[in-house]
Amino acid sequence: MTLPTTMRQLRSLVTADGTLELSLATVDVPEPAGHEVLVRIDAAPINPSDLGLLLAMADVESATASGPADDTPPPPPPRRRGGPPAPPPTAGGPADDPVVRAPIAANVMAGLAPRVGESMPVGNEGAGVVVAAGDDPAAQALLGRTVAIIGGATYGQYRAVPATSCLELPDGTDPRDGASCFVNPLTALGMVETMRMEGHTALVHTAAASNLGQMLVKICLADDVPLVNVVRRPEQADLLRGLGAVHVCDSSSPTFLDDLTAALTATGATLAFDATGGGRLAGQILASMERAINARATEYSRYGSSVHKQVYIYGGLDRSPTEFQRNFGMAWGIGGWLLTPFLMKLGVPGMLRLRQRVVDELTTTFASHYTDEVSLAEALSLDAIRTYAKQATGQKFLIRPNGR
Amino acid sequence: MTLPTTMRQLRSLVTADGTLELSLATVDVPEPAGHEVLVRIDAAPINPSDLGLLLAMADVESATASGPADDTPPPPPPRRRGGPPAPPPTAGGPADDPVVRAPIAANVMAGLAPRVGESMPVGNEGAGVVVAAGDDPAAQALLGRTVAIIGGATYGQYRAVPATSCLELPDGTDPRDGASCFVNPLTALGMVETMRMEGHTALVHTAAASNLGQMLVKICLADDVPLVNVVRRPEQADLLRGLGAVHVCDSSSPTFLDDLTAALTATGATLAFDATGGGRLAGQILASMERAINARATEYSRYGSSVHKQVYIYGGLDRSPTEFQRNFGMAWGIGGWLLTPFLMKLGVPGMLRLRQRVVDELTTTFASHYTDEVSLAEALSLDAIRTYAKQATGQKFLIRPNGR
Repeated sequence: MTLPTTMRQLRSLVTADGTLELSLATVDVPEPAGHEVLVRIDAAPINPSDLGLLLAMADVESATASGPADDTPPPPPPRRRGGPPAPPPTAGGPADDPVVRAPIAANVMAGLAPRVGESMPVGNEGAGVVVAAGDDPAAQALLGRTVAIIGGATYGQYRAVPATSCLELPDGTDPRDGASCFVNPLTALGMVETMRMEGHTALVHTAAASNLGQMLVKICLADDVPLVNVVRRPEQADLLRGLGAVHVCDSSSPTFLDDLTAALTATGATLAFDATGGGRLAGQILASMERAINARATEYSRYGSSVHKQVYIYGGLDRSPTEFQRNFGMAWGIGGWLLTPFLMKLGVPGMLRLRQRVVDELTTTFASHYTDEVSLAEALSLDAIRTYAKQATGQKFLIRPNGR
Repeated sequence: MTLPTTMRQLRSLVTADGTLELSLATVDVPEPAGHEVLVRIDAAPINPSDLGLLLAMADVESATASGPADDTPPPPPPRRRGGPPAPPPTAGGPADDPVVRAPIAANVMAGLAPRVGESMPVGNEGAGVVVAAGDDPAAQALLGRTVAIIGGATYGQYRAVPATSCLELPDGTDPRDGASCFVNPLTALGMVETMRMEGHTALVHTAAASNLGQMLVKICLADDVPLVNVVRRPEQADLLRGLGAVHVCDSSSPTFLDDLTAALTATGATLAFDATGGGRLAGQILASMERAINARATEYSRYGSSVHKQVYIYGGLDRSPTEFQRNFGMAWGIGGWLLTPFLMKLGVPGMLRLRQRVVDELTTTFASHYTDEVSLAEALSLDAIRTYAKQATGQKFLIRPNGR
């Protein structure tokens, strides 16, 4: 197989004057070193955890699109699944060379200083076929195999990575099925592992109808872990109950806090993972946990229950400030939770165990659903950007850098 | 010495109809068991940590005072230090038998259910003289000694406690100097111990001009621990600088956040103890820590710094909700901190080490300052209650249950 010498790669740049600039760069296809393989990226998801680097919290509603000459019309909207096929892109045309610009608020810019002026590749994970390999036997052994990778720059046509960091997928795996092997599956598994490591026996999860949330429902059913699912709409509750979820609380219901307290009483959950981050939900969960604990208390404890209650915020679907009354005693914590530090704490044997489970249950427990499949150029249409920037539960984009 | 058979004890009662009722009960003087001593309480401080049990978050501005018959005039205001002496109380008169009632908000009542209808003694700590002892040699050895105690019910004239729980004070110690041996000194020492246990190297403290804050300044100077003091008024900054404090940031200053970031850059502090709890201060500290860390960063980290930043809330001077922007990456935590669980984690040898330090430095590092000395009855005057309920930094009450 003859490989091209150059490829397209999605880039995110923050300029000193406070503008986000998204574009497709043409770069050399990397030459794999001895221990590396070259992966042709066939599918890469847009996860919420990609959006910070990709969009830099810019105001995408005010974004403008143009070709590199700044006078070309915007590219067409991306093709939705089931819609008519898009015309083949014309190399060098405006649809193939989108440049999107969006303003960044001054207070956000303060935190972005270290990345100003640096054109950054994007994309945490993806899957594809190994099309070239270094001389090391471990690398050569992967030639022609379908693998999943994590580590950045997957929104491009090729990516060189160490052979040891590839997750080899079974023969015949569709790269679409392997695109989301790491972030969502390991995060969902990491929640259950964290629960065990920190001495809790049941879980609460918010934004629970997400792809990740559905995985967690299946994991907890299989592992016999009581799970309280918090969703924001009745149809999301139905979806989760259809998967077998037992405790589903709809935060749009007027009885939400009572429902939550009842579910916490039934499960004894004292650990929650919150994808929303903002608003009052984290505090409401802690207060409901405390109520559930105190309902069983036989004597008054002046500083509240001595049972430690914890909420980990692992996402930021709600960008508003986090706010809580401290009406849950003194034994509580709220903190950030991130996959990579968790995996480092878990150690290599634990990580390998989790990875193997992902491969074994790739099309069952860890199946992902994508509402939109787009090319690299289509991923930079204003319509697409404004859609995935919303992080609406259920909406999920898959980039196909080498065509569908 | 002949002991009385009955004594006065301050009681706090929450009634089912949502009323706080404070009164002085007449109860039997306890008979010490074999391993116990009977302490005549000469001095007991009103700490912020006493107020939850004492006042039950009642609306003290709406409180009414009366004698037990509900038709007597309110007692006179307490004597301030330096004021004229109060007339001797008349046994059984209204000044000697105050009953104070204050309404409790419905949402607060929900958390008080386990204590409704139970008349509870109050007072975490105090000091006095051992006036009787059980047969055990360890108890007998304390007869006549001045001791400090912790464990509740110190707002009364006598208290029986296990001999082993007494902190024996040097001959000639004024019980006033020993009244606050535990809560403030061990909390201040506990902050430094927590810093070491959790791998931090410097501290931030808010409401830093308090009695506790002044102890912490002295401890950190002696132990060479960099300390960032956050105060709310310029004169508080002057007070701390007079003690030798190096970093003092006044939150009322327009340059507060820049001052705080500069102090955090200078000290490298990544752990804060916050006495206020409510409002935006905890989040501002985390954000300033992140800014101080990023100022030294050489490359962009998409999820913020990987340095864990922690704020422990150990008080609630600001009752408003806690609110923060999550503008400090993902490596952060906010949580409750309470003395007793910390001491249990520290273990007995560590606790004995801290207690010995308190005794050794009782009138220097751990000297407390009281603005008001009151009898049990005076502690229940409306004027006194409304003053100590405010928890104003610098204002501190000492109860003298057996007279001054």
